[in-house]
Amino acid sequence: MISEKMKPLVANNSVIRVMFEEGKRLASIYGAENVYDFSLGNPNVPAPKEVNEAIVETLMEEESTFVHGYMSNAGYEDVRATIADSLNQRFGTAFHQNNILMTVGAASGLNVILKTILNPGDQVIAFAPYFVEYGGYVRNYDGELVVVSPNTVDFQPNLDEFVEKINEKTKAVIINTPNNPTGVVYSDATLTRLGEILREKEKEFGTEIVLISDEPYRELAYDGVEVPYVTKYYANTVVCYSYSKSLSLPGERIGYLVIPDEMKDSTEVFTAATIANRVNGCVNAPSLMQRVIKRCIEKGASVNLEAYDRNRNRLYEGLRECGFTCIKPEGAFYLFVKSPIPDEKEFCATAQKYNLLLVPGSSFACPGYVRIAYCVSYEQIERSMPAFEKLAQEYKLK
Amino acid sequence: MISEKMKPLVANNSVIRVMFEEGKRLASIYGAENVYDFSLGNPNVPAPKEVNEAIVETLMEEESTFVHGYMSNAGYEDVRATIADSLNQRFGTAFHQNNILMTVGAASGLNVILKTILNPGDQVIAFAPYFVEYGGYVRNYDGELVVVSPNTVDFQPNLDEFVEKINEKTKAVIINTPNNPTGVVYSDATLTRLGEILREKEKEFGTEIVLISDEPYRELAYDGVEVPYVTKYYANTVVCYSYSKSLSLPGERIGYLVIPDEMKDSTEVFTAATIANRVNGCVNAPSLMQRVIKRCIEKGASVNLEAYDRNRNRLYEGLRECGFTCIKPEGAFYLFVKSPIPDEKEFCATAQKYNLLLVPGSSFACPGYVRIAYCVSYEQIERSMPAFEKLAQEYKLK
Ligand SMILES: Cc1ncc(COP(=O)(O)O)c(C=O)c1O
Ligand SMILES: Cc1ncc(COP(=O)(O)O)c(C=O)c1O
Repeated sequence: MISEKMKPLVANNSVIRVMFEEGKRLASIYGAENVYDFSLGNPNVPAPKEVNEAIVETLMEEESTFVHGYMSNAGYEDVRATIADSLNQRFGTAFHQNNILMTVGAASGLNVILKTILNPGDQVIAFAPYFVEYGGYVRNYDGELVVVSPNTVDFQPNLDEFVEKINEKTKAVIINTPNNPTGVVYSDATLTRLGEILREKEKEFGTEIVLISDEPYRELAYDGVEVPYVTKYYANTVVCYSYSKSLSLPGERIGYLVIPDEMKDSTEVFTAATIANRVNGCVNAPSLMQRVIKRCIEKGASVNLEAYDRNRNRLYEGLRECGFTCIKPEGAFYLFVKSPIPDEKEFCATAQKYNLLLVPGSSFACPGYVRIAYCVSYEQIERSMPAFEKLAQEYKLK
Repeated sequence: MISEKMKPLVANNSVIRVMFEEGKRLASIYGAENVYDFSLGNPNVPAPKEVNEAIVETLMEEESTFVHGYMSNAGYEDVRATIADSLNQRFGTAFHQNNILMTVGAASGLNVILKTILNPGDQVIAFAPYFVEYGGYVRNYDGELVVVSPNTVDFQPNLDEFVEKINEKTKAVIINTPNNPTGVVYSDATLTRLGEILREKEKEFGTEIVLISDEPYRELAYDGVEVPYVTKYYANTVVCYSYSKSLSLPGERIGYLVIPDEMKDSTEVFTAATIANRVNGCVNAPSLMQRVIKRCIEKGASVNLEAYDRNRNRLYEGLRECGFTCIKPEGAFYLFVKSPIPDEKEFCATAQKYNLLLVPGSSFACPGYVRIAYCVSYEQIERSMPAFEKLAQEYKLK
């Protein structure tokens, strides 16, 4: 009954499902508190109190048919203007409301822009390790995902290999900073060079290449590290933002695209993206949440970053003491740890014996590493430490 | 910059949406009260009070990371179970939570099921007049929309032509009852015959044909007319439901698919549809609204149908008195009026001189008619009557 395109997705889904079912099975045997599930990027830090305040205020102060009604497919104009202003204040940009398109989260924003620009056979480049869903999104529009292999020294993108992989079929490049799964923030130097390469290659091939900056973790950066604003480095940039992590609203499906004036055919791209948002069935980003985002920006709401930072430090130090190797993440809420054996899937299986659920790096096109999502309670991290120690002992890491 | 597939969409940007923008422009010139915008199916009847009550109760009684968090891509299990129970009570069906997949409205539900089943080149049949977005949805997955011409006697589907148009490439049939734009409810006799035809053709061609029942107007039926539940007539039925109209929540993007056990490969279709919902970027239906739907069902919330009914009667009588011809709708909130001249686009242009915004029937593959959406205030209908009278006079209808 199902389509040919869906068949591999259903087949590969079962792999992830096995892990999910395994977690539930372990919890039923050992008790949920004795299973250390680090597999999911589902924030445990609650949405800031301003979110629920803004919801109630919206319901009290704004008209029902307006709050819950259809609006322009790009979103409410005042919401988009507020977002543009806020970006301009924080990053010195010059956006206006017609650069901002409200989306059903970043996942949908990525689909909207890919649907807008991709022709069948077009190539989209991603840097390993990368969010594995990109492959599915690109194939939705019959594009081909081309992967640049990881630079495991510091997990900045491997730009030498990147230069080699760009060709006349390259339509887009996806970057994600702060990065899932490494927590690395792409540096000013990286983005400067990336922009140069893209401009050179556009000239060489006489093409336009869109740089898609997937930024659900922009606000999650630690130790005062700066996350450069990507539109400043390259004109044909589309930013894909989400409030899933920055306001802990992943279930609500709210984010936006930035399509800057500097982009080639900017107005047409914006119109087409607005139509893509409608035709793919989203129609518009959820209306109440749009109203809420405006108020949250005005209130200066932000998620409790200290909680993640505390988790980050505790887990990083703890794992280092056990003898594990990983670079300290500057952003997001993931640690990317080197597997003590080349086959990190086997390592994950061993970890499961100690009720530790970790995601193999091959799920991010980066075998030999595992991802630990620390968007969990501090208590879970504390409780998991003896398990990590036993795991380290099994591999004689100390 | 934009893809070949998007180009015609940009060129023919939804007439209805363009009118929506035009209505806003006219309102800014003449004042909102002097523009009679009947173009958009955006409910003017507010959401029932239970909706906002349920929102506040959810925020007070349920945990933030749960209410706003990711959940299973198919939606919260308790919400899906509540919907299944409610359907079973009202329609004598036997659904369970794993037949219900929460979606980002009906538009997204349609995309999810089409993505799940369509291979390139597959044909999908729709009965004119039909919701024009179907064409875009089908082409998203490289399918071909095949249109059965309208039966302008009573606007039940033209089943004789339908029989002729089914072939070995037919993968799905979309019906929409109560219908946009006619307001017609498909009868028991129609659905019985439709089911028979599909079973015969499945046998003849050795294929499976999915009947997709697009039902955003199910709850909007007048004079006690019964809207038959389509899964009872044909096993391979998928229901596509939305709360956009039944609870006046179109901006919130909340609805569901029913994938019944009776359907061939039901479990696999459900799994694939859940993955399609994730990969197309929706990930899940908005979480707070899912929680709210559960409470609204428990509270027995429903929209103020009397308001639409009053509009329906006033407009129908008023137009008839002016000399216009139309059948009285039994459901939804649209009147489908015969254009006094063959070129109904010209008629719509003339109507616009009187600040009357009507949608040409060719937008629904049914030229010679115009759609009037009466989900507006009663006052707008009253105020618009002199404009309709002048329009009728211009065509000497009396
Ligand atoms: C890198 C990356 N991109 C996109 C997404 C999707 O985010 P959203 O919930 O906004 O769709 C995620 C979610 O985990 C992510 O990690
Ligand atoms: C027949 C029909 N199908 C689907 C839709 C889309 O509804 P939703 O807002 O649930 O996506 C509409 C909206 O007007 C409609 O009229």
